Amino acid sequence: MQDKVKLIQYGVGPIGASIVKLVLQKEGFEYVGAIDVDPNKIGKDLGDVAGVGKKLGVPISGDAKKVLKDSKADLVIHTTASFLKDIRQQITDVVDAGLDMVSTSEELTFPSLKDPEMAMEIDALAKKKGVTVLATGVNPGFLMDTLPLTVTGVCQDVKSIKVTRMMDASIRRLPFQKKIGAGMTVDEFKKAVAGGRMGHIGLPESIAMIAAGVGWKLDDIQQTIEPVVADRPLKTQYLAVERGQVAGLHQVGKGIVKGKPAITLDFWAYVGAPENKDSTFIEGTPNVDLTIKGGVHGDLATAAMVVNSIRNVIKGQPGLMTMTDLAIPRALLGNIAKLAGN
Amino acid sequence: MQDKVKLIQYGVGPIGASIVKLVLQKEGFEYVGAIDVDPNKIGKDLGDVAGVGKKLGVPISGDAKKVLKDSKADLVIHTTASFLKDIRQQITDVVDAGLDMVSTSEELTFPSLKDPEMAMEIDALAKKKGVTVLATGVNPGFLMDTLPLTVTGVCQDVKSIKVTRMMDASIRRLPFQKKIGAGMTVDEFKKAVAGGRMGHIGLPESIAMIAAGVGWKLDDIQQTIEPVVADRPLKTQYLAVERGQVAGLHQVGKGIVKGKPAITLDFWAYVGAPENKDSTFIEGTPNVDLTIKGGVHGDLATAAMVVNSIRNVIKGQPGLMTMTDLAIPRALLGNIAKLAGN
Repeated sequence: MQDKVKLIQYGVGPIGASIVKLVLQKEGFEYVGAIDVDPNKIGKDLGDVAGVGKKLGVPISGDAKKVLKDSKADLVIHTTASFLKDIRQQITDVVDAGLDMVSTSEELTFPSLKDPEMAMEIDALAKKKGVTVLATGVNPGFLMDTLPLTVTGVCQDVKSIKVTRMMDASIRRLPFQKKIGAGMTVDEFKKAVAGGRMGHIGLPESIAMIAAGVGWKLDDIQQTIEPVVADRPLKTQYLAVERGQVAGLHQVGKGIVKGKPAITLDFWAYVGAPENKDSTFIEGTPNVDLTIKGGVHGDLATAAMVVNSIRNVIKGQPGLMTMTDLAIPRALLGNIAKLAGN
Repeated sequence: MQDKVKLIQYGVGPIGASIVKLVLQKEGFEYVGAIDVDPNKIGKDLGDVAGVGKKLGVPISGDAKKVLKDSKADLVIHTTASFLKDIRQQITDVVDAGLDMVSTSEELTFPSLKDPEMAMEIDALAKKKGVTVLATGVNPGFLMDTLPLTVTGVCQDVKSIKVTRMMDASIRRLPFQKKIGAGMTVDEFKKAVAGGRMGHIGLPESIAMIAAGVGWKLDDIQQTIEPVVADRPLKTQYLAVERGQVAGLHQVGKGIVKGKPAITLDFWAYVGAPENKDSTFIEGTPNVDLTIKGGVHGDLATAAMVVNSIRNVIKGQPGLMTMTDLAIPRALLGNIAKLAGN
C-alpha cells in the first residue's frame, strides 16, 4: 500500500458529490480521475461539480475506459445507476482495468437475484483480475439487511425477521418527496407504480441477502407498493399535499420460506409520518427487539457506508462480494492507507 | 468440505455443555472428540456429561494432544478458561494439530491487548498451519464491541461511543448471582475486586476492539468496579440480599482518545435492576441511538455466537482473528457443511 489510496469517481450526481465531500474529510485518499456522461460536466473540475468549494485538479471525463486505464488508481467509487442492465458494461470496464470498486447500485448489492449469470461472469472476471467488487449503501446495504442479519448472530434459532423503516418525508429534500409520490393523485401514483417508476429499489435484494446469509431457501419474494393517502392537508417546505392526495408510499417485501413469510421488510416514507425510526424484531431463541430511535439519516448514511466500506474492499478477497462476505462495517476514523495496509 | 463438519469439544463445563446441546440441534455437525481435565468427566460419554439426554459415542479424554491429533476433526470448540496465560498451551496444541478453533476465552477476543507477543506467535503459527482461530461470545464478542462497531458503519464521523448493558440478576442462575457479588457485604465485595476475583471480564478487550476497528489510537483504558448496594431487602429464587448488602455490580470501562473518553462501556448486573436492556449511543454524523428492549439473554446468546461463528471461521483466512476480521455474524439456520463449503 502506498501512502495514499487513489480513487476514481465514476458518476458525479448528487450521491457522487456527497461522497466526494466525505472523502475529502478523510485522511489518506486522493482523487486521480472522474467520469460522467453529462456533457455539462465533462471538462469541468471534479471539485467544482461536486460543490466542495475548491478545485481538485481532476477534470471530469466522458471517456470511461481511458480514465480507468490511465489514472493509476486503486479503487473506483461507482454512483451511476440502480439497475444491473444499465451498469453491466461499466462494471466490466472497471474490473477489466484491474481496479477495486464500491458501487451504490441497489441491484448490485445482491446481484445474483436479478441476473445470476452476470453475477457469475463478473465474479469470475474479478477473481481473474484480483479485484474486489461491492455494492452497498444504507438501504439496501445496511438497515434492512446487514444490520438485521448481524443481530441474528445472537440467536440459537430464528422463526421470523421483521424489519421496519419509517421516514417522515416532511424533513427531506424535494427530490425525495417527489420520488415517493408526495402530491400525486392516487391514480397518478398507481400508474407510476405500474410503469415501474415508483417505489424503493432494493427490498427483494435485501430479502435475498438475509435468506442466503442465514441459509434459508426462499420459495418466493413478494412485494407490494401502496400509496399513503393524506387524511388532512399537509405542507412541507417545498410542496403541499391536499386531503385525498398521496402523502408518500408504503412498500412491503416478504420472503416466503416453507410457505410462510419468514422475512418481512416494512418500508414507510411519507409526509406526516408520526416518527423516524428503524427497527428489527427477531422472533427466535432468544427474541431480539431492536430499535434505532429517530432512525438513521439516509443521505448522510449512504455516503458513509460507501466510504467506510473502502477498507474492507481493499483488504477483501477478490470477487463480486456482498456485505455478507466482507468484514463487519465500521466507521473509518483513521488514515485509510494505514488501516487498509498490512 | 465433506458432508459433515467434525468437531472436538475442548472443555465440558456449563458453557461447553450448552454449546454441545445447540450443536446437536444443527445440521451437518458431528462430534468426533472431547477433552476435559476433570477426573470425574474423563472416560464418560460427552452426551452424558453435557446432559443432552443421549450418548454421543464420544468419550471425554484428558489427553488433549492425542485427541487433537487422532480425531480427524475440522474444528475445535474451546471453552476452558478466560485468561490467556491459562490457555496458551491449549491454543498452541490446537493450532499445531492443524485445526480451526472457536473459543469463548474473553481475553482471546482481542488478544493483542494483554499479550501482543503471544498473539503474534499464535497468528504466525496459525498462518503457517493454514488454520483460523477466533474467540467470541455475547460479551465480549458482540453486544459491547461488534454490534456498536457495526452501527458506526452509517456514520461519516464519530465523536464518542457509549454502550450500556443492564441486567436484572434476579432472573439469572445462582452462579451468576454469586459471580456479581449478590449477598456479599460491601467489604467482602471490595476485597474480591482487589483480589481480581470479581467483575466482568472483557471490557478492556471490547474497548481495544472498537478503537482498532475504527482506527482510533487509545491513550489509556480505564476501568472501575463498584458494588450496587441494596437500598431495601431483595430476594431471588436462590438468595436474599439484606439492605446495605451488595445487590450486584456496576462496572465502567473507558477508552481515552486524545485525552477524552471516546468509548464508554457501562455494565450493570444486579438483583433488582429496573430493566434488562442493551443500548448504544453514537454521537456522530449522524447520531445513532440504538436500544435492544429487554436486552439479550446472555446464556443463550453466548452459545449461539460460538456456533454461528463456525461458518465464518471455516471460510476465513488463516490466522488469529478477531470479530472485526471475519464476515458479519449471522444465525446458522441451514446445513453447516453446505454453508461453509463452495
